[in-house]
Amino acid sequence: MDSAAFELKMKVRDYEVDSEGIVNNACYLNYLEHTRHEFCHEAGFSFADMRRRDMSPVVRRIEIQYLSSLGLGSEFTSHLNLRREGARFIFHQWITADGDRLVVDAEVTIVNVIGGRPSRGEELAAAFKDYLN
Amino acid sequence: MDSAAFELKMKVRDYEVDSEGIVNNACYLNYLEHTRHEFCHEAGFSFADMRRRDMSPVVRRIEIQYLSSLGLGSEFTSHLNLRREGARFIFHQWITADGDRLVVDAEVTIVNVIGGRPSRGEELAAAFKDYLN
Amino acid sequence: MDSAAFELKMKVRDYEVDSEGIVNNACYLNYLEHTRHEFCHEAGFSFADMRRRDMSPVVRRIEIQYLSSLGLGSEFTSHLNLRREGARFIFHQWITADGDRLVVDAEVTIVNVIGGRPSRGEELAAAFKDYLN
Amino acid sequence: MDSAAFELKMKVRDYEVDSEGIVNNACYLNYLEHTRHEFCHEAGFSFADMRRRDMSPVVRRIEIQYLSSLGLGSEFTSHLNLRREGARFIFHQWITADGDRLVVDAEVTIVNVIGGRPSRGEELAAAFKDYLN
Repeated sequence: MDSAAFELKMKVRDYEVDSEGIVNNACYLNYLEHTRHEFCHEAGFSFADMRRRDMSPVVRRIEIQYLSSLGLGSEFTSHLNLRREGARFIFHQWITADGDRLVVDAEVTIVNVIGGRPSRGEELAAAFKDYLN
Repeated sequence: MDSAAFELKMKVRDYEVDSEGIVNNACYLNYLEHTRHEFCHEAGFSFADMRRRDMSPVVRRIEIQYLSSLGLGSEFTSHLNLRREGARFIFHQWITADGDRLVVDAEVTIVNVIGGRPSRGEELAAAFKDYLN
Repeated sequence: MDSAAFELKMKVRDYEVDSEGIVNNACYLNYLEHTRHEFCHEAGFSFADMRRRDMSPVVRRIEIQYLSSLGLGSEFTSHLNLRREGARFIFHQWITADGDRLVVDAEVTIVNVIGGRPSRGEELAAAFKDYLN
Repeated sequence: MDSAAFELKMKVRDYEVDSEGIVNNACYLNYLEHTRHEFCHEAGFSFADMRRRDMSPVVRRIEIQYLSSLGLGSEFTSHLNLRREGARFIFHQWITADGDRLVVDAEVTIVNVIGGRPSRGEELAAAFKDYLN
């Protein structure tokens, strides 16, 4: 695994656990999104800030592998890395529990939309310059 | 039970079922909200219409009793009645399954906010006049 | 307001904010449930423990007033008090933000079901004895 | 696009729309899951049936592209195709709206777990034989 540019400790909320007794697949996308937003906040450019500037980071693609599961009361760590490929920002995100047990491993591709039009990404590159791989 | 001014047939989506094997409590508020929005749509005044006119029907209070449960694959009917009390609109909403088995019984109080300020409710009263008790 | 037997600091996850720009009504029930579960955990009797003993605390009734709203990135405190009325356990739960701004104020009634049958509540009363009002 | 082995008409519930005014990314995974479950039900082998036989179809991987968006009140069609690759079942799933506007395009890989152990997939292959590509 990469070392992470940002990490967030989280805990499963029991309503996120489905009838199989494990966290529902879609919830992991919520965890990943929340982690990206907290990362943006730490980087000094919160989601609310973006809204005020008519910017929307739009998810274009997600690839996620489910490797093991989380259940009632599980604590976990959500990790994030970031690289730029032209106008696209690619977040490598992964979740671990119980030390280094890998739960999910995902790649999330974002394009920044400004005033309704895709941007070339210069604003986000500036905001995230200390974190870009 | 009252006769309903509006009814909507729905089906549980399996991800709404929690680790107890039954639909999670909070999901019923989603069902009730969706029913109100579909009702508004039928009454000719959709939630999207309201947004365009800077109106927000805001929930002030919900009282809900949980009488029986829904599980994987359950089909149910969501019922709605409406009365006005001054500026407040009070939705009586209830869900039944398997004929007349009562699942939840709720009262939802709404105030219409226009341009950020509570209204006296004249617009909603006009829009819903054929449905008001 | 009562003083709280249990408090939990939380933060809005941006996906919980709806198209009105505020936390959706149903999400507050998730917050309240998560708070009760964290309280149970602190009281030494987690939801997972209950499952292992075939116990299910079942929500019978919720009354919730929405007094002000939370938005993107809001931080808040979820408070809880508990009293017993026969077989019923009544949680008074409220959420504050920005100091003492009241966001929601709720009363949640629980009955403990053991092996599929409503219990008289002696087990929960013993588990929560240090917290009961 | 492939022709679909199964199609389901659905409608956005307004609480699924986030502060950007569009359906939140994670909700699409809920739509896709609900479509798979309805498909299983049509194929004569519901999720509840599987639970009774101690079978769990487990998602191993999802790849999803977001091509356009859905908003308040949007109606859409969720399409599904299915092929087998050894023990893995690969669902091609896509959502269209307004005729043939493509909203998301996804590939979901499932392995069937029986009694806690990955199976070779013979049971699902038999159940889905009329639908396999």
